Amino acid sequence: MRRVAIDTWRENVAYLHRDCAVYRAEGFQALSKVEVRANGNRVLATVNVVDDTAIVGCDELGLSEQAFALLGVEDGYHVAVSQAEPPASMHALFRKLAGERLRQDDFLAIIRDVAGHRYSKIELTAFVVACHREELDREEVFFLSDAMVKTGQRLNWHEPLVVDKHCIGGIPGNRTTMLVVPIVAAHGLLCPKTSSRAITSPAGTADTMEVLANVELPLDRLSDIVREHRACLAWGGTAALSPADDVLISVERPLSIDSPGQMVASILSKKVAAGATHLVLDIPIGPTAKVRSMPDAQRLRRLFEYVARRMGLALDVVITDGRQPIGRGVGPVLEARDVMQVLENDPHAPQDLRQKALRLAGRLLECHPDVRGGDGYAIARDILDSGRALASMNALIAAQGARGFDHRAPKLGRLVLEVRAQTAGTVAGIDNYQIARIARLAGAPKVQGAGVDLCRKLGDAVAAGDLLYRVHAEYPADLEFARQACARDNAYRLGEAADVPHVFVEF
Amino acid sequence: MRRVAIDTWRENVAYLHRDCAVYRAEGFQALSKVEVRANGNRVLATVNVVDDTAIVGCDELGLSEQAFALLGVEDGYHVAVSQAEPPASMHALFRKLAGERLRQDDFLAIIRDVAGHRYSKIELTAFVVACHREELDREEVFFLSDAMVKTGQRLNWHEPLVVDKHCIGGIPGNRTTMLVVPIVAAHGLLCPKTSSRAITSPAGTADTMEVLANVELPLDRLSDIVREHRACLAWGGTAALSPADDVLISVERPLSIDSPGQMVASILSKKVAAGATHLVLDIPIGPTAKVRSMPDAQRLRRLFEYVARRMGLALDVVITDGRQPIGRGVGPVLEARDVMQVLENDPHAPQDLRQKALRLAGRLLECHPDVRGGDGYAIARDILDSGRALASMNALIAAQGARGFDHRAPKLGRLVLEVRAQTAGTVAGIDNYQIARIARLAGAPKVQGAGVDLCRKLGDAVAAGDLLYRVHAEYPADLEFARQACARDNAYRLGEAADVPHVFVEF
Repeated sequence: MRRVAIDTWRENVAYLHRDCAVYRAEGFQALSKVEVRANGNRVLATVNVVDDTAIVGCDELGLSEQAFALLGVEDGYHVAVSQAEPPASMHALFRKLAGERLRQDDFLAIIRDVAGHRYSKIELTAFVVACHREELDREEVFFLSDAMVKTGQRLNWHEPLVVDKHCIGGIPGNRTTMLVVPIVAAHGLLCPKTSSRAITSPAGTADTMEVLANVELPLDRLSDIVREHRACLAWGGTAALSPADDVLISVERPLSIDSPGQMVASILSKKVAAGATHLVLDIPIGPTAKVRSMPDAQRLRRLFEYVARRMGLALDVVITDGRQPIGRGVGPVLEARDVMQVLENDPHAPQDLRQKALRLAGRLLECHPDVRGGDGYAIARDILDSGRALASMNALIAAQGARGFDHRAPKLGRLVLEVRAQTAGTVAGIDNYQIARIARLAGAPKVQGAGVDLCRKLGDAVAAGDLLYRVHAEYPADLEFARQACARDNAYRLGEAADVPHVFVEF
Repeated sequence: MRRVAIDTWRENVAYLHRDCAVYRAEGFQALSKVEVRANGNRVLATVNVVDDTAIVGCDELGLSEQAFALLGVEDGYHVAVSQAEPPASMHALFRKLAGERLRQDDFLAIIRDVAGHRYSKIELTAFVVACHREELDREEVFFLSDAMVKTGQRLNWHEPLVVDKHCIGGIPGNRTTMLVVPIVAAHGLLCPKTSSRAITSPAGTADTMEVLANVELPLDRLSDIVREHRACLAWGGTAALSPADDVLISVERPLSIDSPGQMVASILSKKVAAGATHLVLDIPIGPTAKVRSMPDAQRLRRLFEYVARRMGLALDVVITDGRQPIGRGVGPVLEARDVMQVLENDPHAPQDLRQKALRLAGRLLECHPDVRGGDGYAIARDILDSGRALASMNALIAAQGARGFDHRAPKLGRLVLEVRAQTAGTVAGIDNYQIARIARLAGAPKVQGAGVDLCRKLGDAVAAGDLLYRVHAEYPADLEFARQACARDNAYRLGEAADVPHVFVEF
């Protein structure tokens, strides 16, 4: 075996010389899959045929960097190579492609092969597309979610009440998790929160928390922090929770696929694998939210509730106002600033973020057997107003490893674009998607200080020339991309006061 | 630029050193797509990151062999490289994924990107799966077929009547094309026949014809032969007819997807692009054929007819008996032997193959304005019996380049397995799929002399120990695979005479 210093990222590649006897005898051809075995390990790889002995010799098998690392043996080690068997679940996949309903063991077989990276990109995409839209019934969504939990690690916190909160996404800003977690932890609830990084948004909770503290912690260190502080705010990628989810997302993302069944399976499998027993789920609705009408939100709620019940997870769904971004900042540093302002009871803190976080925290507190229905909000407010939530957050930051962030002097991107109103009027619409797009073009979340800082929200009266928002960027090219996007559509719609859309939600 | 001697088959790969300034500045990462431009050509390639200057230096761009050839410049040439734009049709693809109906220009945009190799495997699979089963209405199938013609080369034979025949496949043996073409050409019809090689079957017409003559001919040589002999029997891959079809098949095949819409678009686009004006289409039905019932066959017929009419192709669909293989041999050499026996009016020639070919040829002859409906069969029989079909075939073989095949001493695989009846009875079923599988395991079509030679057909009475068929193979491993498959299921079902299934078809 020989290490070939080519980085093929997630795809394992085996390099075989065209004159290699094994290559000819086995009838391999370029792009066929082979199984490489050494030292008790096995790796599936795609064959590339080499005509240059400087890359790989006739009696050698080359492996790309990641594949080499996976096999865990040294250069020169003797390996065995054979035609890869097709994944065991291929027949179940074909039946789903033919439109059939699958059984629980079919989903388990498929997801085991997905998590084990035994599916090719073609097979993976076929599974995702065959299961999207309304192709899965609700029991199949449960089978899928359950299989995703069973094929990964599952945390057990050895307590009867482990709470979590989650939002289905799509609303820029909206960094309530970083307020809810310290509030409920201050009340003694166990909330070992793991979050994702941004996939298509300008910042995930993990990206924003990373402005304040280290979020990539080994699992045993995380456990220690949770035991001591009743909570953590970490990146979920270090534990192998629902590993099939990450593989499926790698296909769903480039296709912009986000169907109800896959959303439910993705969210609930991660929560159950992380050991949660109680979950408050936020479904925002609005003209530019992921869910645009109350009937759609109710249908999604029922699907979440059905699957959660089958998985033994207590679920409380709240349908919230998703007409516009929550808070002012959009981007890691800007959102971290908003969160710290709320925790410090700064009078300039964005009140919509504070109110939403208090209400979600209140609902989560009501999972506690000693809290009466309806009392949660007041308890949460007391915890926040008294500074106990700030103390809880500061303890978490210190435990995870503080980054020395000062929200009074946040390090924003040094290049600024000011976007102003062309005419007078009332802010009658803010397009969530367009705000997110502008913040991403400006560099978020890769550039922590990049993003959008909103100065006006729905219902605000503006005069011509008034500042609507600032775009922060670090690099001229990024700012130019964002400027072009703003010129096409600055995301703000100005009109009469009566034009502001209403959504009738609990909060 | 530098040629990297790695064969990545259909996937273009660009190799960039990790310390290359372009790689860092442009924010490329492994597996991102880049566009490489030189000398007026452009190639899309997937980035692999290299850590070894022996493969590619810091100021070099490496290209895999095929990508290098596509660009058509020399080692050391100065090239430009940039982030690849997403394909223009991506939005139309997303709408199809969301379940929407697409317009004609959407299909044209998608198929143009598919034919131009601008779709990733993920995008390609998503399109195929989103269009399979009943997802396309019949006008969308026309849009798809029409786009497949428009994005490739289209032959024009400058004659008002250009005939072709096609079978939807699934029946082993069944080599009628090699009889129909010389018969109708002998009558003066123009029949420039291009065929595919086997994809999942033990032999395609091109594989079988290749036993007799050269089938890979440049287009101008093919034109000369057609002008002189009114026909040819060649492999269709040399002309770029409906190139998107080949790209789509590369995804459909590993997923065993063969839905009506995709079958119709694939077949009719190839025929129209090849310049056919009249087509006889064979749809076999039977318990182990692709189409299993008359209602399914009629539904498929109507879809073929609708799309053919929109494309200006005169179509005559015949629904035929697909209960068992046609002829005796299954595999290139065995099928070539059957064909030559029929052409030579050998009394041992398989009569089912002769009869089916005469009937199909008769239908095709009736496309001629001077042939009355119902007269075609008798004309075809006269042409065959008189030896004019044989003369026509021998002229084609000589023109294309004869291989010196002697059907009286065919070169069969030297290893033979005889499969015999375990009990007495009447042959009540022969599984087309299993016979095809056994022939492929024995080595067909790669090993020309490998395959299955059937000694008993439906309705034949057999005694215990009677020979059912012989399996021919060249290599012991192949024979062993075939033997195992026969032991699991030898494809023959013995029963009472009354158990033989009936299909009520015209012929």
